[in-house]
Amino acid sequence: MNGEDRSLELSGDALRRLIDEAASRIVAHVDSLAAQPSADTAGGAALARSLVEGLPETGTPAAELLDFLFDRVIPKSFNTAGPGYLAYIPGGGLPQSAVADLVADATNRYVGVFAAAPGPSQLESNVVRWFCDLAGLPREARGILTSGGSLATFSAVVAARRDRLPEDFLAGTIYVSDQAHHAVQKAALLAGFPEQRVREIETDGLFRIRLDALANAVAADRAAGFAPFLVVGNAGTTNTGAVDDLPALAELAARERLWFHVDAAYGGFFLLTQEGRRRLAGIERADSIVLDPHKGLFLPYGTGALLVRDGETLKRAHALSAEYMPSMQEDADLTDFNLLSPELSRDFRGLRVWLPLKLHGAAPFRANLEEKLALARFACDRLREIPGVEILAEPQLSIVAFRWKRSGTAEAEIDASNLALLERINARRRVYLTGTKLKGLYAIRICVLSFRTHRDRMEQALEDIRAAVAEGEHA
Amino acid sequence: MNGEDRSLELSGDALRRLIDEAASRIVAHVDSLAAQPSADTAGGAALARSLVEGLPETGTPAAELLDFLFDRVIPKSFNTAGPGYLAYIPGGGLPQSAVADLVADATNRYVGVFAAAPGPSQLESNVVRWFCDLAGLPREARGILTSGGSLATFSAVVAARRDRLPEDFLAGTIYVSDQAHHAVQKAALLAGFPEQRVREIETDGLFRIRLDALANAVAADRAAGFAPFLVVGNAGTTNTGAVDDLPALAELAARERLWFHVDAAYGGFFLLTQEGRRRLAGIERADSIVLDPHKGLFLPYGTGALLVRDGETLKRAHALSAEYMPSMQEDADLTDFNLLSPELSRDFRGLRVWLPLKLHGAAPFRANLEEKLALARFACDRLREIPGVEILAEPQLSIVAFRWKRSGTAEAEIDASNLALLERINARRRVYLTGTKLKGLYAIRICVLSFRTHRDRMEQALEDIRAAVAEGEHA
Repeated sequence: MNGEDRSLELSGDALRRLIDEAASRIVAHVDSLAAQPSADTAGGAALARSLVEGLPETGTPAAELLDFLFDRVIPKSFNTAGPGYLAYIPGGGLPQSAVADLVADATNRYVGVFAAAPGPSQLESNVVRWFCDLAGLPREARGILTSGGSLATFSAVVAARRDRLPEDFLAGTIYVSDQAHHAVQKAALLAGFPEQRVREIETDGLFRIRLDALANAVAADRAAGFAPFLVVGNAGTTNTGAVDDLPALAELAARERLWFHVDAAYGGFFLLTQEGRRRLAGIERADSIVLDPHKGLFLPYGTGALLVRDGETLKRAHALSAEYMPSMQEDADLTDFNLLSPELSRDFRGLRVWLPLKLHGAAPFRANLEEKLALARFACDRLREIPGVEILAEPQLSIVAFRWKRSGTAEAEIDASNLALLERINARRRVYLTGTKLKGLYAIRICVLSFRTHRDRMEQALEDIRAAVAEGEHA
Repeated sequence: MNGEDRSLELSGDALRRLIDEAASRIVAHVDSLAAQPSADTAGGAALARSLVEGLPETGTPAAELLDFLFDRVIPKSFNTAGPGYLAYIPGGGLPQSAVADLVADATNRYVGVFAAAPGPSQLESNVVRWFCDLAGLPREARGILTSGGSLATFSAVVAARRDRLPEDFLAGTIYVSDQAHHAVQKAALLAGFPEQRVREIETDGLFRIRLDALANAVAADRAAGFAPFLVVGNAGTTNTGAVDDLPALAELAARERLWFHVDAAYGGFFLLTQEGRRRLAGIERADSIVLDPHKGLFLPYGTGALLVRDGETLKRAHALSAEYMPSMQEDADLTDFNLLSPELSRDFRGLRVWLPLKLHGAAPFRANLEEKLALARFACDRLREIPGVEILAEPQLSIVAFRWKRSGTAEAEIDASNLALLERINARRRVYLTGTKLKGLYAIRICVLSFRTHRDRMEQALEDIRAAVAEGEHA
């Protein structure tokens, strides 16, 4: 054919060289993680502006592009892979998953429809089943892997909406605590609910939803003609790792005929540990659960999960078919993921979860999570010994939140002095912490969840906090 | 710390060995693609059932797992990476993207928020800008990369809903042709519209939406108290690659104040070619456009794109913030992807598009797409020479659809005989074709879009079709 072009088709040797070029830089990067700054974003906007360019017509050698990425682009960022990343909710990015994606992408299987890839579909189903078993959901439970917690939450809201409300659903109301992740609010908006249909319920001293306030809100809404249909329980809030009273929420949801959703994006995988199972008891009564393997299973960003107690409700919310599609499975044991999710074409997303769990087994994941729970308690105990430090949230899971009150500082200035403290801590670039507001007070958080964070790094964090406090006292 | 566990932390050497183990199998797989069957799914359900297992407590050696994947799991499927895959909409799965994902995953940057990864965010913004330029959208246009066309379509529907309809939007109506992809219907359902609010408009002899019928439907809906707000134009349907009269649709949309969405998931990247630009003229007037880089840019499954003419409408549909979040950019040139999309945590998804385009430049993508257009015309010409073959859809892009009428066969039996013909063609396992229904007739499709498909494979396809027809004639 005139104009036949095979230049995109790398030979095996050329592909091998490209992988090798990437691998050598990745290996050097991973080996030096402990020595890299925990965050380095000064001049990030200027860097970004300097990178603007049009679509190139011709190519650039791989080595040049990879050097550019590893030397200029990637380092100028939060080091979300490093052991000092104790900000937001870490994970660490297990490179074992990177290898899984390498395999999945290069073989390019289509896992949206069972018939197109029975084996890959089943391995992904296995992963979902492992998660359902972990959460104590029954055999009829089904689930999907998503790109993250937000889309998993969205599908949960849609499933609840379709299951519990009429076609005209605008009177439906959703209940979350004032500590809930805004992914719920966003999911509700995307699913068509007016913003004010999400009711924020106050929390108690442990940042857990107040059941009396919740019951009152539901009753008031019913009296006003609204249609309460969904309550969200937290199994580890983003702010403090707070776990709501899940058994009591399950009771209330059953009594009020609400869909009971549990946001376990951060906390869910602590179910692998004994302490986590104790803390999260009641989760097995949820109608739906969101988990983020890119948090508690330490995977790279890009994998969330939704589990639904009655798989048929997930299917009723998402299933559609078309004439150009292959036929779907009649057998409930064989999963066509497109029928359970918003997606049709789909990569072999399950492999990035399956491979690390198969390579290592659950044991080291459990041990790592136990270690993280212990590290947060350790940090809390040591923080309390620092003069002026006040614990604002004791670890319920692996987050501790605190503030520092410099001797003689007026209450009105404490927030600002803690912001400055946070900056001094982070400036040392051994750890990266972030803050939040708790009941109106500015709080500094330590969230330990990266598989690369161990006692040595937590000691450094405490050293840097002590030093930053001392600087503040003597300023 | 008691119980410190570092077993998930591969040393650089161990990671290197794992990558090498995967790479050697990938290279062998890619090198043998031309000789692999185009599809092999016999016994797929039995295989799937045999793979069911619980979460393992202990690990399995990498070599064993990779052999299992490459020998047992991956081959039993549609070979969506192979040159003989002419079914549905192929792409091929450029392994250059696999290497990009290897890098992105292993370095685990957080590209949901600009401040967390300015460089990676900008490279992704560059990719989006390249697509906007390709489609002729103005400077204010913004976009997102999604996991595929379905989620991109969903965000388009939400943006249109939020921009054009009141909070109580249930009277809103959406117009699609009877050839539209069901992703639109699914997106509408997820976004809260009752199923029957999506109006299917009949098509003409070239499978293009009938503008008179569309205008009538809009008028009738307005008269009945509905609120028409969104019309979808096809820039390459899934069935036949039909391209609607986009300039006329743009006119009608402007006149009727409808959001004009163009589904270019399959066809959009033909804009890289002269013929494609001619065919898709008018796309530059769209309010939103969906493209699937995992189709027309040959990427592995997992990358769709949404482009929106007025980026602010995309932001108004998706932006929310929270106290635990880093601050967002004030500068419109710097993109916080979480504000434009349903996602918050996000992988460095842009790299899998950026790397192949930078490695090769646009030229070979253009050449490949020109070749695919020519291959479809070539196939059409040769098919027409086969006695009894009737072309049901000439290529508008790279799809041709046909059926075969065995001499003396009654009209009522033609569909069944074409189904049997398709099975005989596919049984040779050099190519894999699929069928659909066109205006009530069963049609066999050839969709040529894999970068690995060239003239030699198309000759094999035609040989196999001729042989299967001959078998049918003599049966």
